[in-house]
Amino acid sequence: MPPSQTRDRILTATAELFRRQGYSGTGLKAVVAEARAPFGSLYHHFPGGKQQLAEEVIHASGAYFQALVCAVYDEQATTADAVRAVLTGAAEPLEATDYEAACPITTVALEVASTDEVLRRATAEVFERWTVALTERLGDRDRALAVLAALEGAFVLCRARRTTEPMLAAGAMAVAHATAAPPS
Amino acid sequence: MPPSQTRDRILTATAELFRRQGYSGTGLKAVVAEARAPFGSLYHHFPGGKQQLAEEVIHASGAYFQALVCAVYDEQATTADAVRAVLTGAAEPLEATDYEAACPITTVALEVASTDEVLRRATAEVFERWTVALTERLGDRDRALAVLAALEGAFVLCRARRTTEPMLAAGAMAVAHATAAPPS
Repeated sequence: MPPSQTRDRILTATAELFRRQGYSGTGLKAVVAEARAPFGSLYHHFPGGKQQLAEEVIHASGAYFQALVCAVYDEQATTADAVRAVLTGAAEPLEATDYEAACPITTVALEVASTDEVLRRATAEVFERWTVALTERLGDRDRALAVLAALEGAFVLCRARRTTEPMLAAGAMAVAHATAAPPS
Repeated sequence: MPPSQTRDRILTATAELFRRQGYSGTGLKAVVAEARAPFGSLYHHFPGGKQQLAEEVIHASGAYFQALVCAVYDEQATTADAVRAVLTGAAEPLEATDYEAACPITTVALEVASTDEVLRRATAEVFERWTVALTERLGDRDRALAVLAALEGAFVLCRARRTTEPMLAAGAMAVAHATAAPPS
């Protein structure tokens, strides 16, 4: 198998493990087991070890999630429909995956925020890219940040409580906020 | 020193460490070092080990944070002032503590959501108690869930990006949502 396929498998497996159990809880042995890759291939492809692997996963997951959310958003005819589709649309996969299919980087972002400046910056860059993409669509940076906060916070509450109720409630708030008249 | 003081020091130290570096990233050696407690005292006071310790910390931190937020809320004259005080009021301690003074249980909640059912339930119980307290004040459960999601999500974005901008934006949305006329 060509090296690039092994590399991709390692990235995909790591993203899965991070989403499910976080950064600190994911050992490199679990990564190679999940990726069905020889241990040596990990340092061959990621000489910087776990930190380099995590940095690449954060950027790759961030880009993937952004593309997914933007595709859902841009399919809709109105801002209200688009924001509703993104937030309430997140409820179904959450439930279908036993509350694992949430934001791919939040757990890692919180774990590294005060402990690893390289990875903290990577998560900050991803959140900033998402904010910019949403600002382009909503026409206002503060609204974009607020809607993104609602989505992220709802993922936390849904995963902890194993119900989609917080996502539906946050979705209604985000739709109202995204479509409200600008403050005078 | 009486055992109860050691027990309290262990709980406080663990809460601090969880907030800063999460559950998986916090070893019991770090806990006893931070608590200035002998290692043996940990299993004396918490025979169930790290899981029991975490469960007690989640409940204690949850009750502490709830009391703090309710005190801030109940000091205000109007719903708008109260929601604003809670959310935008969270911005100042965040900045003053180098973005560590955020929700005390979110990081742990995300780490354990798919990996430890005992601890997942503990975080779910805390989030439910917060939701009930906020529902009593806002008069509507969906609004309470949405405002809580906005607060939680803003903590994530602020910690990752080291700016209070998301909290201020989420605060404006939460105030508008908490005070909007009920949907007809």
